Amino acid sequence: MSAPDDERLTRVALSALGEPGDPRLLDAVTRLGPVAVHDLLLSGNTIEELQTDPDARRSAADPERTLAQAAERGLRFVVPGDPEWPVQLDDLATAEPLQSRGGVPIGLWVRGPRRLDELAGSVAVVGSRSCTTYGADVAAEIAATLSAAGRCVVSGAAYGIDQAGHRGALAGGGGTTAVLACGADRVYPAAHQQLVDHIGAHGAVVSEALPGWSPTQVRFLARNRLIAALTVGTVVVEAAARSGALNTANWAARLNRPVLGVPGPVTSAASEGVHHLIRSQAAVLVTSGADVLEVVGAAGEHLVVEPRGPVRARDRLTIRQRQVLDAVPAIRAAPDHSIARTAGLALADARETLTRLAGLGLAEEVGGGWRLAALAHE
Amino acid sequence: MSAPDDERLTRVALSALGEPGDPRLLDAVTRLGPVAVHDLLLSGNTIEELQTDPDARRSAADPERTLAQAAERGLRFVVPGDPEWPVQLDDLATAEPLQSRGGVPIGLWVRGPRRLDELAGSVAVVGSRSCTTYGADVAAEIAATLSAAGRCVVSGAAYGIDQAGHRGALAGGGGTTAVLACGADRVYPAAHQQLVDHIGAHGAVVSEALPGWSPTQVRFLARNRLIAALTVGTVVVEAAARSGALNTANWAARLNRPVLGVPGPVTSAASEGVHHLIRSQAAVLVTSGADVLEVVGAAGEHLVVEPRGPVRARDRLTIRQRQVLDAVPAIRAAPDHSIARTAGLALADARETLTRLAGLGLAEEVGGGWRLAALAHE
Repeated sequence: MSAPDDERLTRVALSALGEPGDPRLLDAVTRLGPVAVHDLLLSGNTIEELQTDPDARRSAADPERTLAQAAERGLRFVVPGDPEWPVQLDDLATAEPLQSRGGVPIGLWVRGPRRLDELAGSVAVVGSRSCTTYGADVAAEIAATLSAAGRCVVSGAAYGIDQAGHRGALAGGGGTTAVLACGADRVYPAAHQQLVDHIGAHGAVVSEALPGWSPTQVRFLARNRLIAALTVGTVVVEAAARSGALNTANWAARLNRPVLGVPGPVTSAASEGVHHLIRSQAAVLVTSGADVLEVVGAAGEHLVVEPRGPVRARDRLTIRQRQVLDAVPAIRAAPDHSIARTAGLALADARETLTRLAGLGLAEEVGGGWRLAALAHE
Repeated sequence: MSAPDDERLTRVALSALGEPGDPRLLDAVTRLGPVAVHDLLLSGNTIEELQTDPDARRSAADPERTLAQAAERGLRFVVPGDPEWPVQLDDLATAEPLQSRGGVPIGLWVRGPRRLDELAGSVAVVGSRSCTTYGADVAAEIAATLSAAGRCVVSGAAYGIDQAGHRGALAGGGGTTAVLACGADRVYPAAHQQLVDHIGAHGAVVSEALPGWSPTQVRFLARNRLIAALTVGTVVVEAAARSGALNTANWAARLNRPVLGVPGPVTSAASEGVHHLIRSQAAVLVTSGADVLEVVGAAGEHLVVEPRGPVRARDRLTIRQRQVLDAVPAIRAAPDHSIARTAGLALADARETLTRLAGLGLAEEVGGGWRLAALAHE
């Protein structure tokens, strides 16, 4: 850890005094530094006046004890200037607030062995809590591909797509990181205790909120900006028209990071928000983890193979064979001289080629004429 | 009919001498006129040398009889300069050939009561022959919406999406038009005899190929360019990686007409080609007939309603109520003074608002604190 101890402790106190993602507070800290802002807040005020929650008040008044208690629960506090600090979060300093949230976090409470600077190149996989099995399957596939390619998958540990993304990523080398709206020592939803504990044991569980804090609407919004800011791109797998995942997508766009959308049936309400993103060109359409890697990867690093159908007998023809085949009727047989004319060839050449095409199973002679055979219809 | 009779007859002869969409022949006709090209072709040649198919040779040698025979079968020959001529086809004069097909048709053989100049504003609905039921349903829905809005739906009468598009459009005021690769007096595939006859009785069946000619690969390619050129936009509903529908889409792009793609599950091979078009921004994503109308319609004529979720209790709150609600924890209740601080309000104001939120079913008092209630989670 390289940030001076007094600055770190001041940041702990500020973390207890303010809400996650409070744009005015965080902007002041970025511009003036934590000590000056702390002094300003306390000039003429007491901590009691600034923070009405008794727990948070105690945390702000005794940051050393707050840090020690957090450490007992396996949490560390990572602040700007630390070697572990994920510098991509500094992009938040210049981004306009969204839904009254914004700014570089004062610090991040972290549980787990993964260093946050290893999140460079990580990818967010987010989407609806009420996803379909199709969405969950695709999210898991994409996350598994990303993780296998060494990309950490970042999500919010919510029901649905978040969960599928985390689970899909667990097996790969990139692993997964959960960013929470509640304190990093807590779990929301409670049903994901095991999942989040597993991530905390093998990856990282991250929160801007003070340990012990519960998730509120503003904290979800503040959290979404961190998921977008930590990663090099945000994949939205399913999102209904008003899904919170669209807030994360908006943050990614605001931070000039690519937004990637997975389409689904147009008859599925769960894909409506994603289709809208793609249609308005706010998101690039992706169909697989390989597509995602191509968009977020360094130029040339991941090149998607253009979709191709199977190689067919037709594809292996010479130009002349193709020319003749194109002149062979599909149903009613035509005489060879007619085919020769359509193909623009001498009769002898056309006859020879027709015989060769018959040998390939592409043409057949019927009643003195020629027509396409079974293979030509494939 | 306004084209001079001799020019019309010369075009009939040329139509019998050349293949549909032969770019060199059609370019010469556009630049020099049909009579000059006909003279050039015959100078030093006989019709026998130019056309080896006996039927076509007879048609070229006696265009008056060819026209009369076609009329007996209910066909007319529409040529540039006729009041009925669809002038949008003239855009083909300056478009580069694609797969050796291109150019303004010498004329169009037409069966059915619909005048071709009424195809202004028409929309192509094309896609895979081997479509899924999902694709067929969506194609029919889109075609029905377009037709109900007075837009004629143009397609190729093939199995799959083409058929669904024609059928979906039949009921609406826009009707439907089939453009064939075989002669307009024939039907391919044979199973669509009834469908094509119905379109010929109520709309129009169109072909560049001489009556009686069978469908060949080059004629399919020539036909695809007409579908794209006749319409103001091409909707691709499902298309595997090498579907012929992508050829039509390429023609639409070449003619600066919008290409619209309907997404599907990324797990469906039938949507692979469409996803590729959208991903490479060769197509705009559409999810409904209304989306299509918005893209192809005159500016402001059809405005799609932005997708919105249902109106929820949350949406009707005042700013202060929302401010307080945002500060209410989701699970573990918090005391009112803590909520007041998070919301940035005086305690009395927060208490009053919390009581109001409880009345709306959004918050609940539990053990001396407040947390979100059922409706707030919706």
